[in-house]
Amino acid sequence: MEHDLYDLAILGCGPAGLSAAINATIRNKKVVVIGSEVCSPPMHKAQKIDNYLGLPDISGSELLDKFMQHAGQRGIEIINNKATSINEWEGLFNILVGEEIIASRTIVIATGVPYRPTLPREEHFLGKGLGYCATCDGPIYKGKDVIIIGHSTEAEGEANFMAEICKQVYYLPLYKAIENLDPSIIILNGKPAGIVGEEFVLGLQLKDGSTIDTEGLFILGGETAPDRLIPGLEIKNNHIAVNRQQETNLPGIYAAGDCTGGPYQVAKSVGEGQVAGLNASKYASRHRG
Amino acid sequence: MEHDLYDLAILGCGPAGLSAAINATIRNKKVVVIGSEVCSPPMHKAQKIDNYLGLPDISGSELLDKFMQHAGQRGIEIINNKATSINEWEGLFNILVGEEIIASRTIVIATGVPYRPTLPREEHFLGKGLGYCATCDGPIYKGKDVIIIGHSTEAEGEANFMAEICKQVYYLPLYKAIENLDPSIIILNGKPAGIVGEEFVLGLQLKDGSTIDTEGLFILGGETAPDRLIPGLEIKNNHIAVNRQQETNLPGIYAAGDCTGGPYQVAKSVGEGQVAGLNASKYASRHRG
Repeated sequence: MEHDLYDLAILGCGPAGLSAAINATIRNKKVVVIGSEVCSPPMHKAQKIDNYLGLPDISGSELLDKFMQHAGQRGIEIINNKATSINEWEGLFNILVGEEIIASRTIVIATGVPYRPTLPREEHFLGKGLGYCATCDGPIYKGKDVIIIGHSTEAEGEANFMAEICKQVYYLPLYKAIENLDPSIIILNGKPAGIVGEEFVLGLQLKDGSTIDTEGLFILGGETAPDRLIPGLEIKNNHIAVNRQQETNLPGIYAAGDCTGGPYQVAKSVGEGQVAGLNASKYASRHRG
Repeated sequence: MEHDLYDLAILGCGPAGLSAAINATIRNKKVVVIGSEVCSPPMHKAQKIDNYLGLPDISGSELLDKFMQHAGQRGIEIINNKATSINEWEGLFNILVGEEIIASRTIVIATGVPYRPTLPREEHFLGKGLGYCATCDGPIYKGKDVIIIGHSTEAEGEANFMAEICKQVYYLPLYKAIENLDPSIIILNGKPAGIVGEEFVLGLQLKDGSTIDTEGLFILGGETAPDRLIPGLEIKNNHIAVNRQQETNLPGIYAAGDCTGGPYQVAKSVGEGQVAGLNASKYASRHRG
């Protein structure tokens, strides 16, 4: 497989990610943005934004269009997919995106408002029957029954993968229209209420009071918490800890925008993206092999 | 004198100051911006800015125009004058601007790239024959000779004031055209090189090697260093120390933009101005008497 080497791999295509990207391309850095179909869903939905200086009285989607146009003018490449794992090897970061590995000298995390648990006590059950990555932990549940809670259609591919190795997969979608699910999978209706079990997952309770027994529970297709993507990343009050230069505790890894804390505002994100983009560019220049 | 009470008094009308202002007016706060004729001279001179997301390929002065228009649409009041002293009294800040006192619940400092000393060892001689405010320290030099180094025409008024109380005022302009100087003042030609003296100021040395004896030396009409304006303000590496919420070490006082450190960039300033403006607004709401 051909591995392109980037100076900056930017996770997220909202205001922070795009600002980091344009600032790095101006410094002649090779940049890839790993984004999603809709960049910054909260901004996209905003009816009116009047506090981004210089562009008064504009809708969130119009402002986002202007941001995308600016990035487009600078020839910035956006991949509509998700980073599922990141490893460091000989000073380079290898990022698994779909089935492709992207190599980069630095990473800028700009993934937006951080993941919040779907269910009570998720933290406790993590690794004790609960997982967030089917391709990672799936094989443990070979020949067993599992329940998958899907936040978006992205979860369906992973559910289909699990259907090949598990005895029975149950699928509980938290969105409206299922697109492509293996016919062997049993679809659950209702809303999840809590995890049954003391030390390990024993089942899932629904809001109607009913319980489904299971040894394995996956919550998929939501945002990936950055510290699960990058082990050792320091988190503070549910946000990525950064200093005023947008440096995280890990060398070569920067973060900007809502994922670093409030206020959740466009100008703050754009400003932090700029600082992260410029500092990651400097770092990449210093570490040119 | 009628004292209007503001929620935010913002020092500086560059990108950080204007961003703080629009964000506070959206929160229905009463805002005054204490600016200058040209807001952000470095931005005004920039031929091309291509890294403010959403407004690609624009000149600094055009972008500044858009910022001013946005502020104008929100009815933001800009006073073209300088804050010369700030005092806190019963939880309110009293700001001396020209001959007017402005009262505010909070202050946002957005004064741009910080003052750098004009001469070697300035720090040492401060208060030992060297001063930055003629109206403050002038009376000490009643009946004596003083030298005034003027950074701009703003210094001329202070020189004229000194001419009324001193024996002889010497004036060394660091700019081109003198506008209105008292005829009793002796104008010096040349460039200042250093301060003569061990413990106290004894004279001024010029670059041509000549020396003028004096007991008092004033450097006027340049930017006022924020920690001289606000005693006790914490400075770190020549910049105002702030946390990620743009709070300084003093309650109710926030700072944003270049005065808080690099990179000196528009988007960073606008983002920090937003955070400072929103946090100062919250502070003002909590301290409404």
